[in-house]
Amino acid sequence: MTHANYDLIIHNGTAVTVNEHFDIIEQALIGVQKGVIATVATRQAGTALPDAATVIDAGGGFIMPGLVNTHTHLPMTLFRGLADDLPLDVWLNEHIFPVESQFITAENVMWGTQLACLEMLLSGTTTCCGGYFHEDSVAAAVAQAGLRGVLAQGVIDFPAPGVPDPALNVTHAGTYVDQWLGREVTITPAVFCHSPYTCSSDTLKAAKAAARERDVLFQIHVAETEAERNASLQEHGVTPVKYLDDLGILDEHTLVVHAVWTDTEDIDIMRSRRVTISHNAESNMKLAAGIAPVPDFIAAGITVGLGTDGCASNNDLDLFSEMDSVAKIHKAVTRDPTTLDAARVLKMATRDGARAIGLGDMTGSLERGKQADLIVVDAASPHLVPLYAPHSHIVYAMRGADVNTVVVGGKILVKDRQPVTLDQERIIGRVAEIAGQIMKGRPK
Amino acid sequence: MTHANYDLIIHNGTAVTVNEHFDIIEQALIGVQKGVIATVATRQAGTALPDAATVIDAGGGFIMPGLVNTHTHLPMTLFRGLADDLPLDVWLNEHIFPVESQFITAENVMWGTQLACLEMLLSGTTTCCGGYFHEDSVAAAVAQAGLRGVLAQGVIDFPAPGVPDPALNVTHAGTYVDQWLGREVTITPAVFCHSPYTCSSDTLKAAKAAARERDVLFQIHVAETEAERNASLQEHGVTPVKYLDDLGILDEHTLVVHAVWTDTEDIDIMRSRRVTISHNAESNMKLAAGIAPVPDFIAAGITVGLGTDGCASNNDLDLFSEMDSVAKIHKAVTRDPTTLDAARVLKMATRDGARAIGLGDMTGSLERGKQADLIVVDAASPHLVPLYAPHSHIVYAMRGADVNTVVVGGKILVKDRQPVTLDQERIIGRVAEIAGQIMKGRPK
Repeated sequence: MTHANYDLIIHNGTAVTVNEHFDIIEQALIGVQKGVIATVATRQAGTALPDAATVIDAGGGFIMPGLVNTHTHLPMTLFRGLADDLPLDVWLNEHIFPVESQFITAENVMWGTQLACLEMLLSGTTTCCGGYFHEDSVAAAVAQAGLRGVLAQGVIDFPAPGVPDPALNVTHAGTYVDQWLGREVTITPAVFCHSPYTCSSDTLKAAKAAARERDVLFQIHVAETEAERNASLQEHGVTPVKYLDDLGILDEHTLVVHAVWTDTEDIDIMRSRRVTISHNAESNMKLAAGIAPVPDFIAAGITVGLGTDGCASNNDLDLFSEMDSVAKIHKAVTRDPTTLDAARVLKMATRDGARAIGLGDMTGSLERGKQADLIVVDAASPHLVPLYAPHSHIVYAMRGADVNTVVVGGKILVKDRQPVTLDQERIIGRVAEIAGQIMKGRPK
Repeated sequence: MTHANYDLIIHNGTAVTVNEHFDIIEQALIGVQKGVIATVATRQAGTALPDAATVIDAGGGFIMPGLVNTHTHLPMTLFRGLADDLPLDVWLNEHIFPVESQFITAENVMWGTQLACLEMLLSGTTTCCGGYFHEDSVAAAVAQAGLRGVLAQGVIDFPAPGVPDPALNVTHAGTYVDQWLGREVTITPAVFCHSPYTCSSDTLKAAKAAARERDVLFQIHVAETEAERNASLQEHGVTPVKYLDDLGILDEHTLVVHAVWTDTEDIDIMRSRRVTISHNAESNMKLAAGIAPVPDFIAAGITVGLGTDGCASNNDLDLFSEMDSVAKIHKAVTRDPTTLDAARVLKMATRDGARAIGLGDMTGSLERGKQADLIVVDAASPHLVPLYAPHSHIVYAMRGADVNTVVVGGKILVKDRQPVTLDQERIIGRVAEIAGQIMKGRPK
C-alpha cells in the first residue's frame, strides 16, 4: 500500500468488495483520489492512517459498493400509494394516466425527482437508471443531488407531458440526449421507448436509430404481462422479444426491462443479441404480472440487474428490500433453496446492474480504478447481530435504513444518515403541497 | 369524550385503528387506563389535552396497533445467517441441528430471546407467538422485556435441548405450562409439537391432551414441504392435515403453521375444525417450500395471521417487510393485483394474528377495552412522502425502522427508537460472544 495523499479515505469497517472474487476485507482501508478508488487494502494493525483531506470512520460497519437501480421512473414518487391493489387497466387508465396528464409539469418532475434522490441516497443507491417525460428536469435534479444516473427521455406514440405532438417524440428524445451528452460526468443520457405496444414499429426503429447514432443506452419495457405477449402473438405472429429482434432493436446497448413472459427462444435471442435485462421483482409481483425466469437468464449468460420500478408500482426505491425479495421469490418458484444465493443477488444489485446499464467499467464494485461510489452501512443494530456471513447479512437482514454514509464519485452525499446535497425539509414540504393538489384535482 | 384522568395518552397522530370498520382517525387521541385502551377519539381542534400521568406526542405520525408475529423461534436469533441458500436437509442436519445440540443452553436461550425482543420491539411487534426448547428461559426473557407472548415448550421425539429423554417431552411441556399459567399477564404458555413427522401419533395425541387439559394453544408445523406431504401420503395414506384430523388434534385451539401443501379437502377440514393458520411467506420462499394458498384459506373463512419464522430461516423478525412480501407474492401467484389488499394484509398482521393465537379479545386493534398494545410510526421520512392512503403506506412503504414508540399493556417499551426495558449494548455484546463460540465450535 502506498502512503499517497488521498482526497478521501474510508477505514474501520469490513469491505464487501463485490469484485470478481467477492473478496471481503476486514479492517479495510479505501483510498480515493480525484473521485476514483486508488486503494482497496487491509489496514495493518498499528499503522497510521495515510494523509487524506477527508476521513470517514466506518465505525465497524460494512463498506460496500453503492447499489445500482437499473429501472425506475423517478418523478413517480409523486404518486406513491395513490392507487394500489387494482387491476392494471383500472390503475393505469383511471388513476395514473389522468394524474400524469394533469400534474406532470417540468417543475413537478423536478420535485418528484429530488424526493426520489433523497430516498435512493438514504437507502444506499448511488446509481439509477430510468426514463420518464420532462427528462431534462430529471437530469438536472439528479445532477444537483450528485447521484450517478443513466436517464432517458420517454418515447410513446401518445401525447405525453412535454411532448404534446407524438410525431416529435423521437426528435425530442434526440435533442435531450444531445443536450446532456458530456455535460455532467455523473449523468449519461439515454432513450426510453415505453414498450412495443405503445410505440409503432417506425417509432421503435427511429428511436433505436437515434440512440445508436449517439451511442447511448436504449431502454424498453418488454413482455411485462401475459396480455402483452398474447397481443403480440396475435398482432405480429411472434413474441414481443422476437418482434423487437425482427425490427433490429436488440443489441448490447439495449436494456430489456421486465422480460417476465419470455420463453426459451426469447432467452436465446436475448443471449445472442447480448441485450441486458432489468429485473423488477417487487413491481412484477405487486402488479400481478408474474415472475421472470431470472435463473434461466443467468444460466444463458445474460447480464441481469435489479430495478425497483417507479414508486407508483412498488411503492419504494429501496434496493435492500428488493434484494431480499429477489433472493427469496426465485427459490420459491424453482423450489430450490440454492437458487440465486446471496452473493449472486448482491452482484445483481451492484456490479451486474452497472454492466446492464453500460457503466460496468465505471461503478458497481470496490476496485481500484472505478469511481468511488460506495456506502457505509451500520452493522451493530439488533437485527444485524450476530454476524456470520456478510453477503447473507446484506441481502437477508440489512435494510435501507441501516445506511449511514453515501459517497458518489468521491463526493459525500449522505453523512451520519443526513443528506448533504438536498434540502429534505423543503422537498418534503413541496411534494406534500403537490400531493394536495393531486388529491383535489384527481378524477373522483 | 370524557375528560377522565388517564395513565397515558397518545395524541398528534393519525390513528389507524384496524377495527371492524378500518376506521382512520386524524388528530387522534388515545387514552389508556390501567393498561387498557379507554378512549379512541378525535381530538377537537383547540381543546386541551385531558389530564394524564404520561403523554406521548406522535409527532404527526401513525398510531396503530402493535404487530402480532404468530410464529417464530425466538432464540434462533443466535443462528441468524449462520447457513443460507442450502438444501433443507443439509441446512438442518449439517448446520442447525448440530449447533442446537451444542449451544442451546438455558442461558444462551435467554440471550437469544432478549436479542429477539429487542429486534421485535424496535420494528413494531408487540405480541409474539412461538415455540422452542428451554421455553422457561424464553418466557422469563419475554416477560422481562415486556412484550406479550404466547410461548410454547417444544415437543419432539428426539433428544432435545433441556429434554434429553424424549419419553418425557409431553410431561416437560405440561410442567412448563403449569408453571407459567397465570404468572404474568403478558405471558400465555402453550404447547408446540414440532410436526406430524417428528412426533409419533401417541406423542401428538398426548401433547394435544396436555394442551386441552390446560386450555392453552397447541401449535404445530404442518404441510410445510411437498416432501412432507408425500411422505404422509405414503406412510399414512392421507395428507398431513387429514392425518392430524384423524388423530383428533384439530380444533379451534390449534394453530397450524405453514400449511403450504394443502388441498381443497385439507382446507375444508381446517375450516370445519376452526383451526387457525400462521402464514410464514418469507420463510417458505427462502427455504423453497412454496407458497401457501392463503387467498383460499381466507375465502374459506379461516383466520390467518402472519409469522416471520425463526431468524435462521428468514433472517429477521420484521413484520413490516413480511407484510410487504405477503401482499405482493399472492398477487403474483394468483395473477390478480386485487388479491390480499393492503387493509387485509394489515389485518392479518394485527387483529387476525391476535385471533389466530387466541388473544383476539385482548389485542390486535385500537379499540376501547383492548390492551394498550400500540406503536407510533414516524411518517415524515422521504420514503413515506407523499401520503394518500394510510393502509397502503403501512404495507408497501413503511419499514420496521420507522417505528418510534412502542407500548404494551400501557407500558412504554420503546421511546424515541430506544429500548426502555432492555440493555441493548450488553445483549449485543453477549450474543456476539456466543456467536464467536459457535463459529469456533461448529462442524467444519
